[in-house]
Amino acid sequence: MRLVLTISLAMAVIPLPWLDEAPPPPATGPVFTGAALVRPEGYHTWPLVGASLGLSYAETPQGSGPGAFHRVYVNPSSYEAYGRTGTFPDGTMFILELYAAHEKTAPAKGGFFEGPRVGLEASVKDTRRFKSGWAYFGFENGARATATAFPEGRCHSCHVDHAARDSVFVQFYPTLRDP
Amino acid sequence: MRLVLTISLAMAVIPLPWLDEAPPPPATGPVFTGAALVRPEGYHTWPLVGASLGLSYAETPQGSGPGAFHRVYVNPSSYEAYGRTGTFPDGTMFILELYAAHEKTAPAKGGFFEGPRVGLEASVKDTRRFKSGWAYFGFENGARATATAFPEGRCHSCHVDHAARDSVFVQFYPTLRDP
Repeated sequence: MRLVLTISLAMAVIPLPWLDEAPPPPATGPVFTGAALVRPEGYHTWPLVGASLGLSYAETPQGSGPGAFHRVYVNPSSYEAYGRTGTFPDGTMFILELYAAHEKTAPAKGGFFEGPRVGLEASVKDTRRFKSGWAYFGFENGARATATAFPEGRCHSCHVDHAARDSVFVQFYPTLRDP
Repeated sequence: MRLVLTISLAMAVIPLPWLDEAPPPPATGPVFTGAALVRPEGYHTWPLVGASLGLSYAETPQGSGPGAFHRVYVNPSSYEAYGRTGTFPDGTMFILELYAAHEKTAPAKGGFFEGPRVGLEASVKDTRRFKSGWAYFGFENGARATATAFPEGRCHSCHVDHAARDSVFVQFYPTLRDP
């Protein structure tokens, strides 16, 4: 009886917000099944670190258009950790979304906005799992439910050589670059 | 004595995560002081709804450059409400950030990324406070701590005429347009 009273009192005076909450939200970091990264969900509520248009590694222009918009997001806990420590912890995941660039629609008289999404990729830092610390994954614009890492040479060597901080192109990302 | 024991027991068996938390985060919606909107903080963790480059209302091009990047964010609770109901509740706040467009830096061979921020504006829906339902505010790239609304004709008439949904340019924002 005393236990019941005690618990009743506790529930009466202490807010218990988690009792009213919806089902748990999607994971806010990388989820692996074996060696494959599960396609991330819910990252539209993650912090955007940078947007760009037409960034290309190609020496020769690809077509005459402006190229694609890139959006790069980072998982919230790693964003917070980077702001506090200046380093990316294991479990950091960046999402790269590509959107077709569509040109001026009324009332705009010029410029480009994001048309349909045309790509979905991710990078993950895990110094225990990956020899170089980072791995890179492509989800064929969301068509793949899981993805295994690209070969080491395809992405990482360029990131290591040119990225401003820990293989991350912080120099292109105002939200990390200009805190 | 019984009260002390009861509270001790309650604290022993029920997790109280908020006791360990940092100070409360910035407001995730509009804060007014009188008629002035307080400059928003912490919106880099809000959902981005769209990015664009060089969208301009001007009939004649402004200079020969690509124009500025725009980032548009919405406050988290209104993002959730819009996804659930298809309408923007009172208290909805959009943030517009403008960034100078900087051109290709190694390893990129072409394209534009975000240079320094050059503008900070906001729109707020409050059908009790504003005759037209929405008002628009400029913070001089963050130099102003508060801002009063732009005159009704400066922004709203164009939004009403051209925006796809409730004076919001949903047609330019994939995160709201293509759920």
